[in-house]
Amino acid sequence: MARFEHHIFVCENVRPPDAPRGCCAAKGSAEVRAKFKEEVERRGLKGRVRANSAGCLDQCANGVTVVIYPAQTWYGRVTVADVPEIVDALAAGRVVERLRIPDEKLTGRSGDATPRRSA
Amino acid sequence: MARFEHHIFVCENVRPPDAPRGCCAAKGSAEVRAKFKEEVERRGLKGRVRANSAGCLDQCANGVTVVIYPAQTWYGRVTVADVPEIVDALAAGRVVERLRIPDEKLTGRSGDATPRRSA
Repeated sequence: MARFEHHIFVCENVRPPDAPRGCCAAKGSAEVRAKFKEEVERRGLKGRVRANSAGCLDQCANGVTVVIYPAQTWYGRVTVADVPEIVDALAAGRVVERLRIPDEKLTGRSGDATPRRSA
Repeated sequence: MARFEHHIFVCENVRPPDAPRGCCAAKGSAEVRAKFKEEVERRGLKGRVRANSAGCLDQCANGVTVVIYPAQTWYGRVTVADVPEIVDALAAGRVVERLRIPDEKLTGRSGDATPRRSA
């Protein structure tokens, strides 16, 4: 395989300042992504682990939101200070439970096959 | 589970017009992402399948680049006309082979555990 072992997406969506759900950008997501890049490079993981910006990940109430694939690990309220711990956990195959967004709090749907109405 | 069953990321990175590698934005990635959103909604898959913009996915030579997680399916040179076929395949658990970027052409690294030098 020649693909990223871990692909980190950081929501950098921007909403107007008066948007009721807020947005990740206003909570420092650009700095969080920059820190991910720095920590990945510092550990020699560049090429194996990639940190990308993403548009709205639809978890605004939990922002700054980060999702890591292919493991499908969702983190919420991530700060720059949290990033080294997340990258350490990633490299060790662990999850930082205190930051994980529980499945029941994720926007999305359960795994059954019935189409959901548009909303 | 309450998370996206399929999470589609479309590279919308913008580079200067004279950048040698080109960029996905100049090849119509915004229109590709809009078409993904439209096809997902049309099939009643909103909430189960999400199409997001992403920053540079580091596959510029293969742009417009799309990666779908958690399956880790990479598509290259995606056009608006290709999107319905990709979403149909996704819903059916298939891959559109003619658009798939072969692993050996992906930027990234092989799956061994040795740290890679920064580049």
